[in-house]
Amino acid sequence: MCETSARQQAKMPSHWTEDVKARVNARLAEFFEEKLAQANAMSPRAGDLVSAVAELTMRGGKRLRPAVLFAGYRAVSETGSAERIDDACAALELLQTYFLIQDDWMDGDEERRGGPAVHASLTRQYGNAQLGASLAILAGDMAAGFAFELLHRAPFAATHVHDGLAAFSMMHFEVVCGQQLDLLEHADTSLTHHLKTGSYTVRGPLRLGALLAGANPAQLTALERFGEPLGVAFQLRDDLLGTFGDPKTTGKPAGHDLREGKNTALIADARLTLAPEQWATLEQVLGRPAATADELLAASALLESSGVRARVEAKLAGLIAAASAALDGAPLTAGGTLMLRELLARLSMRDR
Amino acid sequence: MCETSARQQAKMPSHWTEDVKARVNARLAEFFEEKLAQANAMSPRAGDLVSAVAELTMRGGKRLRPAVLFAGYRAVSETGSAERIDDACAALELLQTYFLIQDDWMDGDEERRGGPAVHASLTRQYGNAQLGASLAILAGDMAAGFAFELLHRAPFAATHVHDGLAAFSMMHFEVVCGQQLDLLEHADTSLTHHLKTGSYTVRGPLRLGALLAGANPAQLTALERFGEPLGVAFQLRDDLLGTFGDPKTTGKPAGHDLREGKNTALIADARLTLAPEQWATLEQVLGRPAATADELLAASALLESSGVRARVEAKLAGLIAAASAALDGAPLTAGGTLMLRELLARLSMRDR
Repeated sequence: MCETSARQQAKMPSHWTEDVKARVNARLAEFFEEKLAQANAMSPRAGDLVSAVAELTMRGGKRLRPAVLFAGYRAVSETGSAERIDDACAALELLQTYFLIQDDWMDGDEERRGGPAVHASLTRQYGNAQLGASLAILAGDMAAGFAFELLHRAPFAATHVHDGLAAFSMMHFEVVCGQQLDLLEHADTSLTHHLKTGSYTVRGPLRLGALLAGANPAQLTALERFGEPLGVAFQLRDDLLGTFGDPKTTGKPAGHDLREGKNTALIADARLTLAPEQWATLEQVLGRPAATADELLAASALLESSGVRARVEAKLAGLIAAASAALDGAPLTAGGTLMLRELLARLSMRDR
Repeated sequence: MCETSARQQAKMPSHWTEDVKARVNARLAEFFEEKLAQANAMSPRAGDLVSAVAELTMRGGKRLRPAVLFAGYRAVSETGSAERIDDACAALELLQTYFLIQDDWMDGDEERRGGPAVHASLTRQYGNAQLGASLAILAGDMAAGFAFELLHRAPFAATHVHDGLAAFSMMHFEVVCGQQLDLLEHADTSLTHHLKTGSYTVRGPLRLGALLAGANPAQLTALERFGEPLGVAFQLRDDLLGTFGDPKTTGKPAGHDLREGKNTALIADARLTLAPEQWATLEQVLGRPAATADELLAASALLESSGVRARVEAKLAGLIAAASAALDGAPLTAGGTLMLRELLARLSMRDR
């Protein structure tokens, strides 16, 4: 599969994901300028909130979701203008900004995209944590409103925008429910990922792009059959990187997820398969901020020697195979299918 | 004006605001049932969030905004089916639920509509204030998503729904900016009210109802000329009730706003017009939770004897006159105009 995918990538127009990124960044910059003018006409302080949203949105981000959306669009419309989808791409990034602002506040994370989290920077500015958090929540509200506004302005036939808005609302509903599960202990991890990550990283953007292009039911089914395993594969890859990833490329310390006590697919497998004394060794490290580098190394070696890592990697390979198979003979355009195969390779094989 | 309005009310079909209330309640109940089924199919915990939203939404509320929306709709379409507007009415109430959940958490208010605020009840349930607040914010997110979803499903021509969504987004933007001003000290009070109260209580719902009915620009202008002074009048009446209202009908203790230190229109006038020693007397009470009933009584007597109350009441009368005059000869339906006059009387003369 990987070879097929690599060969197919070679045939792709070069850097289409870079083109999507450049276009969505330009659209976002233009939109923020429009909103800043509106905000300044509205109140002397409203510009601060728009700026907080703009600053975090433009600070970084791989623009992965717009690329997925674009591939979903192209899978249905090979010749539609690329620019037509920019509003929807920008809407996804604003939805992401909104989730990040809330997520950071809920988790007490002070940093995001190499700078301060929005609640952290507003708390510093006003010297008051409750006020900083409240203003951050308002910035998130604003970003969410912008996302709905951009999407409903997308230049497509009214019925297609209507279907796109329904998909967007469902994605919003799923992510909120996924975040709820994430906050509650003992919640089902794979369901949390399905709702929180799979929904708005893969399945939702694919569906949205396809609906805006006027997809028929067979096309939507094919994309769903592709997106569902890809979403899970994306998460498994994330879990593998969080434990075995090279700190130099992931930017996170080795064994990061073990120290954080994250209930990854590795831990879920280990809990079921390790002998009691092996599990006890692992548990001494899990969620212990004070765990030493040596202890973390021993724990990840245990996950490797006991076959846990191999099982998760085998599961990942199976998911990639399933996603790839879903594209074989699917009623999608040739160009769009190539893009989807490239995304499959990138998302599930990435090293950061 | 009051007499005219009272006479016109007599000609109105009986209790149309009660009809709107009954219909929006029925639509909300039906919608929550649909969403609860979706949530239960999605995750074992998602139903809790839907229930939190439903419980606060159905706990009470005058359904004032749906009545304003309905009058805006009728002012443009005298014969359109009443049921067609139900989705939009329900959307406004869900937007209101979202704002109330956030507002209560931001202000630290523990009660709402005669029961616990959402963050307060979730904090009690989980024994953790940060978790309770986070889950409340998610419930608010869900309510906001529901509001956009209901509106975009409203059974009107696609172009009218499109215009309605634009108005809804603008209203959302204004309220978020109004809430920001409300959180920041020394902010411009009348601008805060314009954005926070006027926007989604009066101007926004009127405009939304009219747009869904396919209003032309002249009709929108007439409604704007009516809604702008009415929104301010509504707020002034609120200010007068908060200081001079009868505790038996308002449900709030006498002099409530003085004790809270609210920067009402009365206080804004007093600050400009009272002699220094009078202002000093007033300031001793303002925002002092420990102020006695006698001190509050003396302060409100001062606002009366110094002419502050009379000036605010004169301003209110002028606004009512302006709103009423905006309807004279306006290009709106006869039936809708009667409803607007009735709302004018109710909103600006209410005693609770």
